[in-house]
Amino acid sequence: MSNADSVGAPLSAEEVAALVGGRAEGGAGLQIRGVNDLAHAGPHEAAFVAAGRDLQGRDLGRGAAGGVRATRAGLLLAADGVDTLGRACVRVAQPALAAARLAQHFHPGPPRYAPGVHPAAVVEPGAALGSGVSVGPQCVVRAGARLGDGVVLSAGVCVGERCEIGAGSYLHPGVVLYPGVRIGRGCTIHANSVIGSDGFGYIWDGSRHYKVPQLGTVEIGDECEIGAGVCIDRGTFAPTRLGRGCVVDNQVQIGHNCELGDFVVLCGHVGLAGSTRIGDGSVFGAGAASAGHVTIGKGVRIGAWSAVAEDIPDGAVVAGAPAWDLREELRARALWRQMVKRERDKRRR
Amino acid sequence: MSNADSVGAPLSAEEVAALVGGRAEGGAGLQIRGVNDLAHAGPHEAAFVAAGRDLQGRDLGRGAAGGVRATRAGLLLAADGVDTLGRACVRVAQPALAAARLAQHFHPGPPRYAPGVHPAAVVEPGAALGSGVSVGPQCVVRAGARLGDGVVLSAGVCVGERCEIGAGSYLHPGVVLYPGVRIGRGCTIHANSVIGSDGFGYIWDGSRHYKVPQLGTVEIGDECEIGAGVCIDRGTFAPTRLGRGCVVDNQVQIGHNCELGDFVVLCGHVGLAGSTRIGDGSVFGAGAASAGHVTIGKGVRIGAWSAVAEDIPDGAVVAGAPAWDLREELRARALWRQMVKRERDKRRR
Amino acid sequence: MSNADSVGAPLSAEEVAALVGGRAEGGAGLQIRGVNDLAHAGPHEAAFVAAGRDLQGRDLGRGAAGGVRATRAGLLLAADGVDTLGRACVRVAQPALAAARLAQHFHPGPPRYAPGVHPAAVVEPGAALGSGVSVGPQCVVRAGARLGDGVVLSAGVCVGERCEIGAGSYLHPGVVLYPGVRIGRGCTIHANSVIGSDGFGYIWDGSRHYKVPQLGTVEIGDECEIGAGVCIDRGTFAPTRLGRGCVVDNQVQIGHNCELGDFVVLCGHVGLAGSTRIGDGSVFGAGAASAGHVTIGKGVRIGAWSAVAEDIPDGAVVAGAPAWDLREELRARALWRQMVKRERDKRRR
Repeated sequence: MSNADSVGAPLSAEEVAALVGGRAEGGAGLQIRGVNDLAHAGPHEAAFVAAGRDLQGRDLGRGAAGGVRATRAGLLLAADGVDTLGRACVRVAQPALAAARLAQHFHPGPPRYAPGVHPAAVVEPGAALGSGVSVGPQCVVRAGARLGDGVVLSAGVCVGERCEIGAGSYLHPGVVLYPGVRIGRGCTIHANSVIGSDGFGYIWDGSRHYKVPQLGTVEIGDECEIGAGVCIDRGTFAPTRLGRGCVVDNQVQIGHNCELGDFVVLCGHVGLAGSTRIGDGSVFGAGAASAGHVTIGKGVRIGAWSAVAEDIPDGAVVAGAPAWDLREELRARALWRQMVKRERDKRRR
Repeated sequence: MSNADSVGAPLSAEEVAALVGGRAEGGAGLQIRGVNDLAHAGPHEAAFVAAGRDLQGRDLGRGAAGGVRATRAGLLLAADGVDTLGRACVRVAQPALAAARLAQHFHPGPPRYAPGVHPAAVVEPGAALGSGVSVGPQCVVRAGARLGDGVVLSAGVCVGERCEIGAGSYLHPGVVLYPGVRIGRGCTIHANSVIGSDGFGYIWDGSRHYKVPQLGTVEIGDECEIGAGVCIDRGTFAPTRLGRGCVVDNQVQIGHNCELGDFVVLCGHVGLAGSTRIGDGSVFGAGAASAGHVTIGKGVRIGAWSAVAEDIPDGAVVAGAPAWDLREELRARALWRQMVKRERDKRRR
Repeated sequence: MSNADSVGAPLSAEEVAALVGGRAEGGAGLQIRGVNDLAHAGPHEAAFVAAGRDLQGRDLGRGAAGGVRATRAGLLLAADGVDTLGRACVRVAQPALAAARLAQHFHPGPPRYAPGVHPAAVVEPGAALGSGVSVGPQCVVRAGARLGDGVVLSAGVCVGERCEIGAGSYLHPGVVLYPGVRIGRGCTIHANSVIGSDGFGYIWDGSRHYKVPQLGTVEIGDECEIGAGVCIDRGTFAPTRLGRGCVVDNQVQIGHNCELGDFVVLCGHVGLAGSTRIGDGSVFGAGAASAGHVTIGKGVRIGAWSAVAEDIPDGAVVAGAPAWDLREELRARALWRQMVKRERDKRRR
């Protein structure tokens, strides 16, 4: 099955090599029209042979040989030294990255709509739209909002009063921005995410939970991608902040007053309690969480389903609940299973 | 309190018995107009007496006798051998199933709207609507979408370019389908769920997280029910797939390239990392999660809040984080509590 | 940086003291125009000096002295006995509560829209709107719905058939109420939350998961605040219920037939399985969960990421998975870390 949406011009093996910064081996006369995985690629498609390790340290190359033998791909993207069984290939240091670059050449990206305001959209007086902005059907843009050049609001997007959205950002259907939220340039926000809802702040006054007004807002840096169904709360006083180039997966919850550096990665279902600080380039695995008011350094890796309850220094690799050094956690798990086994054997005797 | 929405014709005890495949004992002259639970049912309602065990193995019949004594229900649905204190009843092998069948008789189901396109909806040229389709207010149907006969888009639903929705499917308010998504026949998707958003794929290129275009789509089989606030990501190359008859609870996250068989059950807050494969009829308890690239067999049961980190064979019953055999997990928990108690007692001495 | 949205009249130190029920020390001639945190407050703003302990028992006053030294705030809100280095201050028993009260004076609250039905909204015949109701653009209000005086539907809100919303309640964009849902007076529901979707009830009938119709609804008491992206399922027969004054954080999932008392607190990502009962004033920490059919007493505190698998008595403080007494859990964690360390040291020898 080929990927039907391909739109970029077909490429020769040499052109593929040039595009991805690699070196062609064979493949003269090939016309590559798309990219796919080894199992699904056809004779006019490129496919990459996995190599290296993923975030969890798993060897991505496991079983690559079998995939290479069985594939019908016309062109392989492979690292030096990987046996490609004599097939046409492009040698490149990061084959998966090369496949992504190639996919960006062929892939049309999300739908591009004609600039202008759809007749079924509502743009209040006093909103400012840059050139080439597209406001789709059923959208609402409130007074005082400012949308930079080329911004796309797909459909059913609500942009609150005085929000600012940087040039080239793309908001998918159902996204809600509360008043005053600031989104950088070149960001993508996926469907039904909510940015800038009130932080969860109450104080028991003796008879009820008295609401602490949430006066801050949310600021998201340039070139961030926010998944679907994400909630990012506004700060109590100062804004909740994400640096540039952060990537946030679906259904993540970011509490009020969190401050994320640049290039932070939050996988699906991550929950950050209020006032969590995260340094540049740190990664939260799926379902991981932080307690409030903790500071996590730069380049930290936090395993899936871990719970960070105290500060973590730069570069640490942690796991567990509460999270500690990953090696301690793995040792602990192994020890525990041994103990349970010993106990069981003792009873059987 | 009776359930006010009942619409089906009243039934005699004999008619109830026929409808549910049971045997009436007493109840001559009764006119049953609805179904309710033991605690709330009135004299014109049927109520079932729980029996058997739930997914967690708990005895549902616990305390049934007290419920039978106190109920004002006109007719009981009960298994053979259950003491119904001489009240009118219908004997049936699966009382809860019988109650569900009876409820389907009386319950009007979700609102049925007049066929046609609401004046406040936007259906782009080039979308194809089958007969009897209802497109409600504030909906958007993009070019190239195809809606089968009798499809209902309740309100505020966004259907992307080239999506296909099978006959009789019902989409509740705020559902978003990204371009190219395919939904089977007779499916229900609850409010604000997002199907087909981009999978979470990035590769660090030395200066930023380079986005891996997500070229696949999502395919959902016939007669699936998807809860509210669910996110199902599109595949990187091949589609993310759900078989037929799957039921997915609220706020579940299904990563890109997952492949689910038929009749899979995912309870609330489940998170499936990318490329998880699940065999027919397997059940994930609430909050359970999978690591990426694991294969779970058929008929597997995974306890609530478990984390599946490796492949699971057909028919296994597992729990824990990481998940292992349920009996091992229960033994481990008991052992652990004993150890903590021993340690505490030792210190006290 | 001052909080630009301030709207309340400026206040003298004496007026601040009167408003928060405190005692002014110094500050003659001050004109306070807003409230902020110590780090961001300017000379015309008040800021509070944290004191006491948060829900997790952490000392909020840690580091307060440094904050007082560095702040540019014109007026401090501080408890008796806290050293404010001679700065103008208002002494008050609960400084954070005082700051919240002051913020409510200065903060405009969520946008207030002109009463009436926006031309881009759809209100079906047979819906009843009280005086001063505002139905914003892209909203849908179905037949038979009843909105009390002063209700605000911000934008893109869907209110199902026969819903009732009490006076003064505010629904943010994208909220969906299924048919028959009842919301009390003075409630706030944040964006994209779903109230009243079908509970997750199926019975295997030998060939498929037979759907149990969900005939109940949801009833939410007065003055509740529901976060963004929350899902609350309707009951199977009787309604799912929340008492008055409950506060529910983002992305919480409440299963069918749950019954919550008054002033219950559910932090982010909490998941309640069906038929969970919770007494007045109990608190679930972030990510905590309950198994179905458990009863949790009044005033119970459940630690973050805990899993409640059995009944909990009034006033208990629990943590862990499964949850037990917090002190046992802390003792267990400490013991476990010691054991792992001992084992590691043994191997090294």
